[in-house]
Amino acid sequence: MTATQTTRVTAEPGLPFVDVVREFNAPAARVYRAHTDPELFAQWIGPRRYSTTVERYDARSGGSYRFVQTGDDGARYAFHGSFHEMTEPNRMVQTFEFEGDPGHVSLDTAELEDLPDGRCRLTVHSTFQSVQDRDAMLAAGMTDGMNEGYERLDGLLASGGA
Amino acid sequence: MTATQTTRVTAEPGLPFVDVVREFNAPAARVYRAHTDPELFAQWIGPRRYSTTVERYDARSGGSYRFVQTGDDGARYAFHGSFHEMTEPNRMVQTFEFEGDPGHVSLDTAELEDLPDGRCRLTVHSTFQSVQDRDAMLAAGMTDGMNEGYERLDGLLASGGA
Repeated sequence: MTATQTTRVTAEPGLPFVDVVREFNAPAARVYRAHTDPELFAQWIGPRRYSTTVERYDARSGGSYRFVQTGDDGARYAFHGSFHEMTEPNRMVQTFEFEGDPGHVSLDTAELEDLPDGRCRLTVHSTFQSVQDRDAMLAAGMTDGMNEGYERLDGLLASGGA
Repeated sequence: MTATQTTRVTAEPGLPFVDVVREFNAPAARVYRAHTDPELFAQWIGPRRYSTTVERYDARSGGSYRFVQTGDDGARYAFHGSFHEMTEPNRMVQTFEFEGDPGHVSLDTAELEDLPDGRCRLTVHSTFQSVQDRDAMLAAGMTDGMNEGYERLDGLLASGGA
């Protein structure tokens, strides 16, 4: 049986950062692969009510990506960005833009470290171009969507699907 | 005769941003091209005492770049990043990392707007992953190097070389 994992989110007032810490019941290498293999990524990213189609996902340093999420109601949300650095299994640095709000880009650094008992810790530092952009992203439900995605990833890891 | 241009740099205490405003005696399209054509870019980027070799420069949305600067004394400094968005002639969003201090990445948004009399204004908003990173970049002489680069670009534009 798997205990529910806690996602710790820090967003200090007046700074354009969001920091996230989340543990997984799997080694760093498997969580890295779930972030970089487009077929796995599509199975867990974002809230459950969306299905994800990956259009481009060249997860290497200097590559780029685009994916589209379609809701139960047919609404479509597209996202794209560039991979600045992908170092298996412990570091991913990439840009992120929601095409529904073009021109607002964030820079996300994700680090993975192995823990005892086959577990790992994911640490994400997101940097926004302004404090307003950061606050708008939080107000739009960034944290809930991320949490739900990580719960889906827990399930995928537990089932051996990733 | 060309008047000396002023580079206005703003770096508010306690925030991880550097904002730069600079005008050029050339239309936005030519300044955009001087940023995106690797042969032109190599002729002006950085201080005069360095010569630049562009190793990779795929200046389109989703592309990446790497260039090396060699000083009079033979010292070499390498830089790389990804192009998140390149929209000719007025918007360039890219990541930047100095390989001498790996793991510290900035996200730079440059915007160009045409002004009367065939001039243009370049506005750059650089976002760092921490206030410390921003302050270290300023302390390392970012502003002087940028200024000198823009003076070289002035010369290149005046000579018709770009």
